[in-house]
Amino acid sequence: MSLKDFINDAISPWMSNEGEDNDIVLSSRIRLARNLEQVPFPTSSDKDSLNKVLEYMDQELTNQSFQDFKQMKLVRMSELEPVEKRVLVEKHLISPNLAENNETGAALISQNEQASIMVNEEDHLRIQLYYPGFELSTALKTALDLDDWVEERVKYAFDESKGYLTSCPTNVGTGLRASVMMHLPALSMTNQMSSIVPEINKLGLVVRGIYGEGSEALGQLYQISNQTTLGKSEEDIVEDLRSVVKQVIASERKAREWIQNQSGIQLEDRVFRSYGILANSRVIESKEAAKCLSDLRLGIDLGLIKEIPKNILNELMVLTQPGFLQHYAKKTLTPRERDVFRSNLIRERLKLEG
Amino acid sequence: MSLKDFINDAISPWMSNEGEDNDIVLSSRIRLARNLEQVPFPTSSDKDSLNKVLEYMDQELTNQSFQDFKQMKLVRMSELEPVEKRVLVEKHLISPNLAENNETGAALISQNEQASIMVNEEDHLRIQLYYPGFELSTALKTALDLDDWVEERVKYAFDESKGYLTSCPTNVGTGLRASVMMHLPALSMTNQMSSIVPEINKLGLVVRGIYGEGSEALGQLYQISNQTTLGKSEEDIVEDLRSVVKQVIASERKAREWIQNQSGIQLEDRVFRSYGILANSRVIESKEAAKCLSDLRLGIDLGLIKEIPKNILNELMVLTQPGFLQHYAKKTLTPRERDVFRSNLIRERLKLEG
Repeated sequence: MSLKDFINDAISPWMSNEGEDNDIVLSSRIRLARNLEQVPFPTSSDKDSLNKVLEYMDQELTNQSFQDFKQMKLVRMSELEPVEKRVLVEKHLISPNLAENNETGAALISQNEQASIMVNEEDHLRIQLYYPGFELSTALKTALDLDDWVEERVKYAFDESKGYLTSCPTNVGTGLRASVMMHLPALSMTNQMSSIVPEINKLGLVVRGIYGEGSEALGQLYQISNQTTLGKSEEDIVEDLRSVVKQVIASERKAREWIQNQSGIQLEDRVFRSYGILANSRVIESKEAAKCLSDLRLGIDLGLIKEIPKNILNELMVLTQPGFLQHYAKKTLTPRERDVFRSNLIRERLKLEG
Repeated sequence: MSLKDFINDAISPWMSNEGEDNDIVLSSRIRLARNLEQVPFPTSSDKDSLNKVLEYMDQELTNQSFQDFKQMKLVRMSELEPVEKRVLVEKHLISPNLAENNETGAALISQNEQASIMVNEEDHLRIQLYYPGFELSTALKTALDLDDWVEERVKYAFDESKGYLTSCPTNVGTGLRASVMMHLPALSMTNQMSSIVPEINKLGLVVRGIYGEGSEALGQLYQISNQTTLGKSEEDIVEDLRSVVKQVIASERKAREWIQNQSGIQLEDRVFRSYGILANSRVIESKEAAKCLSDLRLGIDLGLIKEIPKNILNELMVLTQPGFLQHYAKKTLTPRERDVFRSNLIRERLKLEG
């Protein structure tokens, strides 16, 4: 497989589109947790019942299309190699939880990979929709339409007072998790994230690094999502998230401007050195790669670097995860070998833009 | 002035030739200290006497040619701007001492800048000859021929038992200082320099960093030269230096081989990262630039980098000195501004090899 094919394989087609505020918000996601009436929820169900859910969804939705989401395809966990599952997790198309369910787990994925429905994860169905940029309202509207389309085929577990019923009480009500993936390099450089995160948490939202462990956010990529799913309408939940994200966007823009004014040449130096390392290193750890990719992306957003497309950050953050690297290498790699393959892949990728 | 012209201006024509062992020995130099009979030596002479020496040398040697050293040109210190003097010092054509002698100091420099004669430095005449690579014997032979050619015009202060008489007793006898400029990155990386330097000193030779202060040798560039000028013939002095340098060359080669075997990919990573920084940084201090240039040169010597000429190291070490940077910028620069100009100049220089 050529590198170009591999990248096309790695990058979901929707990712190459651009949405609102895409200098800071990389993508918006809506996820709806749904369960079928009259079947015990996955957490308390037996294999046969869940298999029936799976077969039914397969029969009803495989090869179906809804709006732009053509040709839903069913991928059974039992049929995947470990590295293939890992790749789907790294593309955020399935959860690590689902990957472990070899008995009854599956995912229906649209051709453009923008819509996916996990089957027999924690709930019978988890409908997911991604949009590039800051497009929460559109994403919600479309997700609810998609939800209605699914509901034409199944009867959801629904309670008039509580709303949609789910395995975990934290999802009861709307079953909605709305989130955005944000790139916040300037707020990180100016050490503002440590005060912003608790502020956002106080508002009932959750901020976490998308890559990395603990408080460390690799690539300065953060996910902000709602925590509450009950007691508010879907539109209100999304609107509350939207208004906070708007504020974070404004703060990040202000911080970028401040840094440029304060230390334009140092910032430029940082951006180009990171580019130089990405384009030349022969061994690179994921942490350093993420830092350099974040700098590079900031340089693109600030107009310092023109010949490289914006989505190099999301693209290479995905491509250089362990699963993808091993998929590309076609073999199991030690961490040290991964560092070599990671640097090769980044170099070759940047050369394509030469 | 275009960058190409500027570089040509900066790089003495002889530098672009290649001599023996030029993967390690960058250049060989012979310097002869001579004084005129019947004129008090510069350290104890008056301005009028020294001016007579200067006028006489001007009259006898200006526009004269000897072998490959065409069209000797007299440059008077009194006629130079401070930045021009600095540039000549950075090209090693004059000493900082001579630069300060605005009254009677001058230098006769051949068109190819390979031969130069400082007039009224510590001694009346200091004849200097440079060769690329490890060419001490040729350099000595030619220097002695040049010395004879000068002697056809003047009578040297010479004592049958002591030899040539000089201002400083350390130069009495042959008046000879032979030296080589060596690039020793592998001995430095393997921490062997700290034991090699005292070993060489014990043999009556002197090792010092060419750039940098104290024990630090910027760019891993070292000069090894003789200390004793008395009691041995010129040929023996040079032969003793030669045999020690041969050993250092062998050790450096062995260390390079060892590093390549031990950590090929790490070494490659180091070389290419340094290249990436040189080709991309926007601010770079002299210390980091020297380190990266040394890595780059090692990469060229090991065949890892093919499109860049070997003498990029000597060339850019000279070009990025404060004098040259200010000559290029055509104004006085603060240290911080120099770091920006240095990175610009290195980037532009590397682009010429694109």
